[in-house]
Amino acid sequence: MAVKERIRVGGRSARIQSAVHEAVQRLAVATSRDELTVPQIAAAAGVTPSTIYRRWGDLSALFADVAVQRLRPIADPEETGAMTSDLRVFIEQFMEEMSSPVGRELLRDVFSQPGSHTVRCGNYTIEHLTTIAERAKARGETPFDVDEVLDHVVAPIIYHILYSDRKPTLDYCHSLLDRIQSLPRKT
Amino acid sequence: MAVKERIRVGGRSARIQSAVHEAVQRLAVATSRDELTVPQIAAAAGVTPSTIYRRWGDLSALFADVAVQRLRPIADPEETGAMTSDLRVFIEQFMEEMSSPVGRELLRDVFSQPGSHTVRCGNYTIEHLTTIAERAKARGETPFDVDEVLDHVVAPIIYHILYSDRKPTLDYCHSLLDRIQSLPRKT
Repeated sequence: MAVKERIRVGGRSARIQSAVHEAVQRLAVATSRDELTVPQIAAAAGVTPSTIYRRWGDLSALFADVAVQRLRPIADPEETGAMTSDLRVFIEQFMEEMSSPVGRELLRDVFSQPGSHTVRCGNYTIEHLTTIAERAKARGETPFDVDEVLDHVVAPIIYHILYSDRKPTLDYCHSLLDRIQSLPRKT
Repeated sequence: MAVKERIRVGGRSARIQSAVHEAVQRLAVATSRDELTVPQIAAAAGVTPSTIYRRWGDLSALFADVAVQRLRPIADPEETGAMTSDLRVFIEQFMEEMSSPVGRELLRDVFSQPGSHTVRCGNYTIEHLTTIAERAKARGETPFDVDEVLDHVVAPIIYHILYSDRKPTLDYCHSLLDRIQSLPRKT
């Protein structure tokens, strides 16, 4: 119980992080993110501006950190009873989220920083795909290859979102899924 | 001759742009880019700081603009005499350039901005692939499908660079090329 309590409440450092993250998200609803300032965020979070500078360095590092938290999955991928539909539903939601204005802004925040932010986001996708593949295995289905789905479904979707101002279509997502060699062919 | 002269010299606006771009690139050699300031760049370019603010808004927009210029191809892709080797050489160089520390920084600068910067960079890649495919056609070869190469070779390479801290290997690039359905199979 003591351990659980400690994890839930977190240390001073964790409390500061969550107060600042919440302040950024709350302020970003009413104010354009480009107009947010460190003193404004500090006031809303109940910390001093120097706490923010010390911990994050600058606003773009803070925004990247908030973006990674927001991209972190809060639940397992939806379970539909079969691998191909589990994967299809996951990919459709992934495309919808990432190509939305909010998703594009989160991607921008994450990619503006060098280092570990993008690796963490990439790992969230790997974890979800692995969950879907393991579920399939448990059901007796032959699972897809996670790397293959990353390279030939996830990567082209992200590439289209990043390099184009149009949203990828659902038909496009389905055509990418149809090409995956380790998925059973449609009959 | 008069026209050519005009194009080369450019208007006042083009001269300012090129002076500021050159200043950024020159200063970035000696100073970490994160330490560059607008007054410093303005002094090096011989313009006022307000010229920079008026034209670019802020430093990250200026850096993105410089990055797009630097990513703009200065020559056609290398001609090797056959389509598969033209494409292989182009993809190897693309991977090397984009995964280098400089390439990663340029990608970060470009992706930090919303809007047209990324579309322009994406178009450079499309233009190069189209050149290679058209050359193949002129030689009597059956050209590959440009969209297929974008989705299944270029996109996974960029995805690996963005979401991982490791560099994609040449073997990995070759395995992606081997999968392209519109390329002749290796025998």
